[in-house]
Amino acid sequence: MSDNLLEKLKFKMKINPEKMALYLESFIREYVEKLEREGAILGLSGGIDSAVIAALCVRALGAKKTFALVMPEKDSKKEHTEDALQFARELNIETKLIDITPYLEKLGVYKLLPLDKLISLGKLKGPLIKKAFHFYERKTGKFTFLESLTGFKDKEFSSYLARGNAYYRTKHRLRMLLLYFYGERENRIVVGAANKSEYKIGFFVKHGCDDATDIMPLLNLYKTQVKELARYLNIPAIIINKPPSPDIIPGLAEDEGITGISYQNMDLILLALEKGWKPREIAKIPEIKEDEITYIKSLMQKSEHMRKIFIPKTF
Amino acid sequence: MSDNLLEKLKFKMKINPEKMALYLESFIREYVEKLEREGAILGLSGGIDSAVIAALCVRALGAKKTFALVMPEKDSKKEHTEDALQFARELNIETKLIDITPYLEKLGVYKLLPLDKLISLGKLKGPLIKKAFHFYERKTGKFTFLESLTGFKDKEFSSYLARGNAYYRTKHRLRMLLLYFYGERENRIVVGAANKSEYKIGFFVKHGCDDATDIMPLLNLYKTQVKELARYLNIPAIIINKPPSPDIIPGLAEDEGITGISYQNMDLILLALEKGWKPREIAKIPEIKEDEITYIKSLMQKSEHMRKIFIPKTF
Repeated sequence: MSDNLLEKLKFKMKINPEKMALYLESFIREYVEKLEREGAILGLSGGIDSAVIAALCVRALGAKKTFALVMPEKDSKKEHTEDALQFARELNIETKLIDITPYLEKLGVYKLLPLDKLISLGKLKGPLIKKAFHFYERKTGKFTFLESLTGFKDKEFSSYLARGNAYYRTKHRLRMLLLYFYGERENRIVVGAANKSEYKIGFFVKHGCDDATDIMPLLNLYKTQVKELARYLNIPAIIINKPPSPDIIPGLAEDEGITGISYQNMDLILLALEKGWKPREIAKIPEIKEDEITYIKSLMQKSEHMRKIFIPKTF
Repeated sequence: MSDNLLEKLKFKMKINPEKMALYLESFIREYVEKLEREGAILGLSGGIDSAVIAALCVRALGAKKTFALVMPEKDSKKEHTEDALQFARELNIETKLIDITPYLEKLGVYKLLPLDKLISLGKLKGPLIKKAFHFYERKTGKFTFLESLTGFKDKEFSSYLARGNAYYRTKHRLRMLLLYFYGERENRIVVGAANKSEYKIGFFVKHGCDDATDIMPLLNLYKTQVKELARYLNIPAIIINKPPSPDIIPGLAEDEGITGISYQNMDLILLALEKGWKPREIAKIPEIKEDEITYIKSLMQKSEHMRKIFIPKTF
């Protein structure tokens, strides 16, 4: 019976990648037309989502009308930048490489996290932010990522974690600004790469480059489905197979290490909830823990403000 | 009969400023609580909307929990900055003055508009951007502001106007980034100052500081109503009575000169449409021209993408 449930869910997760690609291409063309633009601009990070977006734009509009910005900074892993540039060459699209480190320095972003002080306070060594992240969890019994979605009210470590928020989020907001800066003057639509999994749990930067865009073609696909689509689109294996990473926080390299849950289980839970399954029904699947369902529901709830600006009622 | 219609509309526009202020204060407190923040941050421009927001935050949370950024740049009028700083002193709130010119210079924003070239092309003199703005209208028979909401496809002047878009919009996106940069590290909610009039017609910067915020307390009030509220809140007359201006485009100083319609008529039309009045009914009011109704409807339609990120359907 529980096997049945898992199979049922996995079946619902399946997409027809060929049809999906065609639909998303026409979706992109439709909005380029509707917004009266002449092409598309996107940020290419070296990760799977933005690679899929780039491939879809090329299929929808042609390589000549697709423009990519690659925007590394000093915390970015060199290999991701290289993968992004290499893939842009394969797609034969115009690309601009902008090292955003000088802007972030000028803004004072890197000064926000006084790593030395963190060491003396919490006796941290090694990948410091990762340790601070988990130290907070051990000390408070709370999930750092979940707490980060709203505000840190605890006194001791909260100021570091709040600074950590400003530290990494500013990077993605600057990337958004640059995408519009280069896109607007050439009349391009800004295409975002957020997927449904990240979006639903708040694993993105509010008003950053994975949120503040013109269109978001992957927002109807879970990460699992994006991967299926990526394979169909012949995205390079090196990009498909690398562990997903936001690549904006040194020491916190992998999505799953930050969110604290595997994409596989997260996607199954999100899909089941979307289809109206009750938590106790989902919990019958042995691969899924009840805690995970509660956690996902908390993430969805606590990140509501990231998907919606609150406005007062009308009288 | 037509007099009746105008009176009826004007009556519907009336608010009870005391009740409205109390409601908006509780709205602000509610979301500071919900988002688990410790205070508020806002941008103060010297204009009426942000002054009202500052006053409401002080009433809702107290002066100690309200923080204002004043972010002029080289195109900003000095008097607006002085009005902002003076009002912040009156409110007794912590304020940080950041000249954003150096950031915009580093980004290359000011280089976007080659004013010399504009002169040689269109033989423009005086306030150049204003002339280019109206030159485009005369040449194409289109409304520049209306066209600017999507993309400029005409070849001759479009690249200058597209650059003009990138030029002024980057300023407000940088201000948004800075509000979050200072707000997040101190766990403050970012309060936006957009009003219903501007928002409905797209007179704001998509993903800029008047759009990308946490809460927007004035989004249920037309400009006319914000003015009424401002008087009740004892906002200084110098701020209430100055002509509304975005203060981001040199030579295009006043809102009404850019949108091409008075706030008074715009608000009446917007309210009538909101209440379900038919255009031919609204046109019976002698003060309102039929053209104005059509124009407002076009603005609302063409700016739809600014209020909504387009996503594909789910299968």
